[in-house]
Amino acid sequence: MTGAARATGYDPATFRPLTFHDAVPRFQDGTDTPRAYLERCLEVIAAREPVVRAWVTLNQAGAREAADTATARYKAGRALSAIDGMPIGIKDMLQTKDMPTEQGTPLFKGAQTKMDSASVLALRQAGAVILGKTVTTELGMSHPGPTTNPFNPDHTPGGSSSGSAAVIGAGMVPAALGTQVVGSIIRPAGFCANTAIKPSFGAIHRGERLAFSQSHIGVHAGDLTDMWQVLYEMGSRSGGDPGQPGLYGEVTPRPATKPGRLIVMESEGWAVTDPATAAAFDRLLGQLRDAGVMLLRRGDNPLIENFERAIGDSLAICRDVCGYELRWTLENLVERFPTGLSESMMSRLGLARSMTLQDYRLVLMQREAARRAFEAIGPLADGLISLSSVGPAPLIENKAKDSGVTHTTGLPAYNAATSVLGSPAITLPLLSVAGMPLGVQVIGQLHTDAALAGLARWVVDSVKPVVA
Amino acid sequence: MTGAARATGYDPATFRPLTFHDAVPRFQDGTDTPRAYLERCLEVIAAREPVVRAWVTLNQAGAREAADTATARYKAGRALSAIDGMPIGIKDMLQTKDMPTEQGTPLFKGAQTKMDSASVLALRQAGAVILGKTVTTELGMSHPGPTTNPFNPDHTPGGSSSGSAAVIGAGMVPAALGTQVVGSIIRPAGFCANTAIKPSFGAIHRGERLAFSQSHIGVHAGDLTDMWQVLYEMGSRSGGDPGQPGLYGEVTPRPATKPGRLIVMESEGWAVTDPATAAAFDRLLGQLRDAGVMLLRRGDNPLIENFERAIGDSLAICRDVCGYELRWTLENLVERFPTGLSESMMSRLGLARSMTLQDYRLVLMQREAARRAFEAIGPLADGLISLSSVGPAPLIENKAKDSGVTHTTGLPAYNAATSVLGSPAITLPLLSVAGMPLGVQVIGQLHTDAALAGLARWVVDSVKPVVA
Repeated sequence: MTGAARATGYDPATFRPLTFHDAVPRFQDGTDTPRAYLERCLEVIAAREPVVRAWVTLNQAGAREAADTATARYKAGRALSAIDGMPIGIKDMLQTKDMPTEQGTPLFKGAQTKMDSASVLALRQAGAVILGKTVTTELGMSHPGPTTNPFNPDHTPGGSSSGSAAVIGAGMVPAALGTQVVGSIIRPAGFCANTAIKPSFGAIHRGERLAFSQSHIGVHAGDLTDMWQVLYEMGSRSGGDPGQPGLYGEVTPRPATKPGRLIVMESEGWAVTDPATAAAFDRLLGQLRDAGVMLLRRGDNPLIENFERAIGDSLAICRDVCGYELRWTLENLVERFPTGLSESMMSRLGLARSMTLQDYRLVLMQREAARRAFEAIGPLADGLISLSSVGPAPLIENKAKDSGVTHTTGLPAYNAATSVLGSPAITLPLLSVAGMPLGVQVIGQLHTDAALAGLARWVVDSVKPVVA
Repeated sequence: MTGAARATGYDPATFRPLTFHDAVPRFQDGTDTPRAYLERCLEVIAAREPVVRAWVTLNQAGAREAADTATARYKAGRALSAIDGMPIGIKDMLQTKDMPTEQGTPLFKGAQTKMDSASVLALRQAGAVILGKTVTTELGMSHPGPTTNPFNPDHTPGGSSSGSAAVIGAGMVPAALGTQVVGSIIRPAGFCANTAIKPSFGAIHRGERLAFSQSHIGVHAGDLTDMWQVLYEMGSRSGGDPGQPGLYGEVTPRPATKPGRLIVMESEGWAVTDPATAAAFDRLLGQLRDAGVMLLRRGDNPLIENFERAIGDSLAICRDVCGYELRWTLENLVERFPTGLSESMMSRLGLARSMTLQDYRLVLMQREAARRAFEAIGPLADGLISLSSVGPAPLIENKAKDSGVTHTTGLPAYNAATSVLGSPAITLPLLSVAGMPLGVQVIGQLHTDAALAGLARWVVDSVKPVVA
């Protein structure tokens, strides 16, 4: 167990994230306990939190009690699941019965719903230790919270799952829940050297957070095994969103599976990727080619070109779909708190107010067309590969913009497409640029989450991280 | 304006429900005002509420203020919509910023969310007067509230939209919102002589109530014009559910449109319909045949037979789909309030706990098959016609059961199918059996709500109510 290092930049050769699955044999043979594991997490938190500022609320007493109960279960040989006793952080967009849910806005300061979101309830049923709530941007959109990047506090951790990405990068806990509407899991996870999954749309029950038609609950973790086990234990217990078939896959992570072909997805990101990052990614692709993976790009097949065109407006699709779907919530909040929302959020509301129902229907049709174009390339390859962001985490004070929306937590230009598509995406910490981590994502067709995790494992096992 | 009669049984020849659209010209010429209209409603409520018990909360002060504002708008020639100034009751499953939302359970006594549900917000934007919250069964399921049938207090008003159906039958307001997961709009509306619509799935934004994959928000009204205008003004402002195209149709109700062919839907209801009701329905069908409408039944076409078989387990589909989808909410409530739920609700939870994710997937496939079978009969006719219930409203003390669930508010045997299908259904007060009202419903393909309202208008204009 490592991960307690101070923020001294990112070196993939020495960085070892906190993991849980390798501790379980010691819980079983009695040489370690979930309670002792939790105490080590709390020590890291005590050391790093003053600078990282990833937590909104910590429930140390509740976590210790849950860890003791888990300890007793291991002693009795009755662990509830592979994640029994695992300390987990919950993005503060999701309800927890024992902590407030503040959604990154002072408007909900101290708000207590006394309910567990469906995913949180499932984690508790699996024996996980719900340690605390992690910082999110305002209502999970763009306006940032106080969290800093665990590898350099002058940089953003990304957003909106800022705290969940940072707690993994800082080695505070082995896993945390995030949510993604546009790019809120994959991008910050990449900025903070997480292994993380945004699963298929509908795979994990979103509980009270069903108001977006393209949002997802996912897992930030230190490695693929913990990532999958958290996802599986949650999905098998919570089920998927209402009307959805839920997560497909097995309790045991799929073994490493070499892809024969991968499509390199350019999306809206490639044209605005910084040169050092593009060069690092090319070197990574070179390793895959050397390992015998055939790489296909938009010039290689008209269906891929058609796909790239269909996802070429994903940022605008996200802006319009999500803006229209947010109206109801925002109109209520603006009436209650006329000056309570950020400038960034008010600009979203302004865009949304200018949309009619017909505008919304048309953007849904555009989204549907992108999904059909994505299905059409399914048979061409075993998956897609892409960067998780256009560069490493920008400075906190940046003001990046796209399609009229300010993104201080970094551009989601590589993320909007998979949110539009609802496809599973897994980011892997395979690049280091200018001393900061950067993710590479693999992407699969809808409901292939388990197979995609096997593909991701082969990639991690088969390439060396690239330092640029 | 009538409707203030005491409960003296139901006579379709004399019953005249309260309507609003016919009052609007007088608001415009200054001979009447929304405030005066509201006061007349409050008089009826004062007279009838002690027995009918349809309201959980009345916000008289807020309603008077809203009615005065509407009055000023008419005076200035600036009415916001066709329902500006219309007093409306809101089923107490839906959030209102100015009143508690208690969901028919003492567990939420006084619960204030300070938010308007999306549909309620839309109604306010259209100028409607949100008068109060109407009684619902426990969490919108089976355990009844205190409401009695406005035509005979010994009988149930039906459920779960008990109060919304009763306030229309009692002539207290011209419209009320209901919600339907299984049979909660169409059946009580029929029991209380309402004209009511359960629109296409997804047509009206369900706001915070997205946890069911087959629930709907609909409108109880005194006639088709008010029904459509409330639905349209709501749908055009709230939009549909996230990811759905929303309500199709125009601000002006479609004119009466004679159907060439109608399919008589038997569903699970016909085999358990009481003989007097079946005979009355047959007489009504005779009038349609005499008017030149060709009626088709399951024996007339193998696709209709296939459809009837596909919807033949709709009650069980509803039980399993909704039970599984309720688990998350119920598990939270049971933990907080171990003895707070009714026996009926606990039996639903017991059934749900016995289901696996695979069971849920299989029942979703069964539902999907029913929807495909329904689409396949679309080209055979202009719509479907059926009873809205197996008989008139039963006595309050009945204990009807189906598929393991107790239904004290009447069997939803004619309603489960359209909930499973997501198809629009409009109930019309065309039958009277044993002195109590009974509905006949017309049903259309998905998103044909506007055309279905035109078809319903032709039926209302062309047949005489049958008294049996």
